Amino acid sequence: MSDHNPPSPAFPSWLPEGDGAHDATIEANWLFRLRRARFRSRRSDRTHDFYVMHLADAVHVVALTPDDCLVMVRQFRAGSGHDSLEPPGGLLEEGEDPREAGRRELLEETGYAGDPAVLLGTAWSNPSILSSRIATIVVTNARLVAGPSLDPNEEVSVELVPARDVPAMIADGRIDHALAVLGLLWWLASRPEGLKMTNDR
Amino acid sequence: MSDHNPPSPAFPSWLPEGDGAHDATIEANWLFRLRRARFRSRRSDRTHDFYVMHLADAVHVVALTPDDCLVMVRQFRAGSGHDSLEPPGGLLEEGEDPREAGRRELLEETGYAGDPAVLLGTAWSNPSILSSRIATIVVTNARLVAGPSLDPNEEVSVELVPARDVPAMIADGRIDHALAVLGLLWWLASRPEGLKMTNDR
Repeated sequence: MSDHNPPSPAFPSWLPEGDGAHDATIEANWLFRLRRARFRSRRSDRTHDFYVMHLADAVHVVALTPDDCLVMVRQFRAGSGHDSLEPPGGLLEEGEDPREAGRRELLEETGYAGDPAVLLGTAWSNPSILSSRIATIVVTNARLVAGPSLDPNEEVSVELVPARDVPAMIADGRIDHALAVLGLLWWLASRPEGLKMTNDR
Repeated sequence: MSDHNPPSPAFPSWLPEGDGAHDATIEANWLFRLRRARFRSRRSDRTHDFYVMHLADAVHVVALTPDDCLVMVRQFRAGSGHDSLEPPGGLLEEGEDPREAGRRELLEETGYAGDPAVLLGTAWSNPSILSSRIATIVVTNARLVAGPSLDPNEEVSVELVPARDVPAMIADGRIDHALAVLGLLWWLASRPEGLKMTNDR
């Protein structure tokens, strides 16, 4: 299994094939641009056409009230066909700081605002097919300061969830959006008491 | 994360618009089917066209050697343009159990095999745009039993990562594939000692 020339984490093992003659935009709309693009392996010199959906980066907001409840939203998700319980959030504008975008989305979707946002972390949402990253930010002392002001196509309901209930809600699937779970687990494990999940399976 | 075949959750707030006259397949290829589909809100009676990329479910394998190292793979990801350090894994065949698919992918990508796989959980990968779910399974006592047998377009290198190093590698971004991080955090928090993340940000 040894690789005598292991790839450098900093330098990708595949590079875009020079002239782009084999690349194509399959679909472009208000939400994303779907591209097929040819890359060449520096290791094998083989080429392969990869599909990538170019989508804006996104942010999830772990918003905590003074009495240790999370401000969450429930909304329809077409990929699952179900309504999903998630931290509020949304897409970043080009070049926008996720803390700024998160604060805006929190206020618009829920009417809550709190202390200055702290960035917990950022990861590639699904780098095998999507270009986007997901950031998780934390806003403490969240309080209801306004009514929500939603886009016409946003239909969300706000739910306050005691923080202590979140691990069990992840374990039994009441919270089942992977990127939401990622941010919540990270946040829970960052609290002073750490995180211990139990699995009854 | 829920059971792999969870009971039907609450009735969704949007339903497919009856006759499908406004739906369309934008792209169909060996990997996915991109659809635009009209739904109608049961709450507002408004309609909206949602985009969904229909993609097979996937599995990540947390494979642990007897000396507490994770068997991981590094491979190019076109969405990020970088090589990504991840648990081995791949797509499920139609109707396949993620434990079976994970065992197969672990062996093919790394040459490792171990104890019968345990399902840690399943979540919707990104239900705002993808139809797929990601399962995480755990294989203990993983030992090198064969050479890898990769598909022609798979170029992966195997890396053994001490389990104790994983939280720091997530915190500083050396492991930055969100769905991989999700599975690893879940697994780490399920160990007897639990998980405590530190954030220097």
